[in-house]
Amino acid sequence: MPVDTIDCLRAELDSEAGLLCNKIDDLFDALLVSRNDGRDILFKAMRHAAVGGGKRLRPLLTVAGARLFGIARERALRTAAAIEAIHVYSLIHDDLPCMDDDDVRRGKPTVHKAFGEAAAVLAGDSLHALAFEILADAETHEDPFVRSELVLELARASGPNGMAGGQMMDLAAEGQSLDLAAITRLQQLKTGALIEYAVEAPCIMARLPAEARTPYRGYARNIGLAFQIADDLIDHAGDPHAAGKRTGKDAEAGKATFVSVLGPERAEQQARFLVNQAVEHLASHGSEADLLRALARFAIERNH
Amino acid sequence: MPVDTIDCLRAELDSEAGLLCNKIDDLFDALLVSRNDGRDILFKAMRHAAVGGGKRLRPLLTVAGARLFGIARERALRTAAAIEAIHVYSLIHDDLPCMDDDDVRRGKPTVHKAFGEAAAVLAGDSLHALAFEILADAETHEDPFVRSELVLELARASGPNGMAGGQMMDLAAEGQSLDLAAITRLQQLKTGALIEYAVEAPCIMARLPAEARTPYRGYARNIGLAFQIADDLIDHAGDPHAAGKRTGKDAEAGKATFVSVLGPERAEQQARFLVNQAVEHLASHGSEADLLRALARFAIERNH
Repeated sequence: MPVDTIDCLRAELDSEAGLLCNKIDDLFDALLVSRNDGRDILFKAMRHAAVGGGKRLRPLLTVAGARLFGIARERALRTAAAIEAIHVYSLIHDDLPCMDDDDVRRGKPTVHKAFGEAAAVLAGDSLHALAFEILADAETHEDPFVRSELVLELARASGPNGMAGGQMMDLAAEGQSLDLAAITRLQQLKTGALIEYAVEAPCIMARLPAEARTPYRGYARNIGLAFQIADDLIDHAGDPHAAGKRTGKDAEAGKATFVSVLGPERAEQQARFLVNQAVEHLASHGSEADLLRALARFAIERNH
Repeated sequence: MPVDTIDCLRAELDSEAGLLCNKIDDLFDALLVSRNDGRDILFKAMRHAAVGGGKRLRPLLTVAGARLFGIARERALRTAAAIEAIHVYSLIHDDLPCMDDDDVRRGKPTVHKAFGEAAAVLAGDSLHALAFEILADAETHEDPFVRSELVLELARASGPNGMAGGQMMDLAAEGQSLDLAAITRLQQLKTGALIEYAVEAPCIMARLPAEARTPYRGYARNIGLAFQIADDLIDHAGDPHAAGKRTGKDAEAGKATFVSVLGPERAEQQARFLVNQAVEHLASHGSEADLLRALARFAIERNH
């Protein structure tokens, strides 16, 4: 791919990301209206975490995936926001003192630092419920079969056999020497499952039969691992200001990561290999897949 | 109603409760199979909280409500289990040190006491996701419209405008002098919303139009408040062994409750009044409503 084409995709990706971030913020703004009845801290805590932060990678994957099937951004937006709500709830809970004990997230104080631990637990729980409320609403999709499949797969991706299970494996792995297969399995649950769902969701919205989803699952799986390797590289060598969060945590906690097992050079090579594989899964598509290609290519540059 | 009829209903209620508890335990047993990959503590924590405990009031309401519309227990069981999963997740999170800080629940150590705080947060999150996974599965109901309405209303009942919002109001109310209207509002969110959903769910499964649901909503609202008053009375005067949890907490925390505002005698009167009102909402029904009547009548006796 010639350099000017990549640059052009980069510009389109940045523009799409900017638009999407504004629209998701607008949606959360409308959904999270504060109440003066003892719940004002709860809604403030939810807004603090959900509005105006992060690269919105998962919603971008959903909107970019929707393009493959001719689904407009507006139609994919609520599904994208539901995925972001799940991601944000998991960040709030993972940052708690009893979990990863982090004070800074997305360049701001974490929710429990700003609003207290009880509000943080409840803000996470509330965003968790909100995600399913968004998906099950007829505004998200007119077909109830699509809505219930969106719910079913998100529940699977975020529960004990997905994200929450992966976080448990991660906590259990502290101080243990995992091999590459075990780290890969852990990360496929902890971060991979939700990233895969972000690409599965537009397939569900397009009513794609299960057997036709294989290439998109392959793309998502490769992207998920590439992102995680990039995240480990940021933690290993990154600048906390650029990362918007504390770095060097993995080594400190004695955690086995892709970087600790492969070393930084081979980890970077592996991430690039995975990105190329991801893009190959889109070979049958024309320009409607360009945003997904751009997301894959720039995945490992990010300093989220 | 003659005494022997009440006794007969009591026997039927106890028998139904016993059967339902076993069936819900069997379902959770099947869903929560432990994995030896770092997630064993997570599944053990979920089972500790979900299997073999509690009176299963909410699932009983769902199964008893299903009878009104000729829906068999087996068909209502998965929906009932989803509601119990939400209730149990809320107990796990509410018991955390940063929330109500309780050591004993249902006569056993709370989840964070037995498995640590991180596992407790994740076990709650996992049961939360599991509830929606159960509801959105075609095994729960063949009609996707029913499934997505079950999900939508459960998400509303358990999120920031329901249970989680009510818990936030409860934490914010410590040391504040609330009046009866404010306590009623708080409890309608904190415990009422999920109890109302437990009766709404069979209406959804029976595809009852919204306007036909009014009496059942009235029943559920009265029952929800009566249960809460009974709970406040247990906390006020109860025996921690019979209650299966610490008592006297509300007075200790300076919390305004129905008992602190009304006094125990008027609180008891009010609970009985609400139970009678609840039963009146079922006047158009014959014996198919007997289980709901029995649940209402014995609601304020419970030492759950």
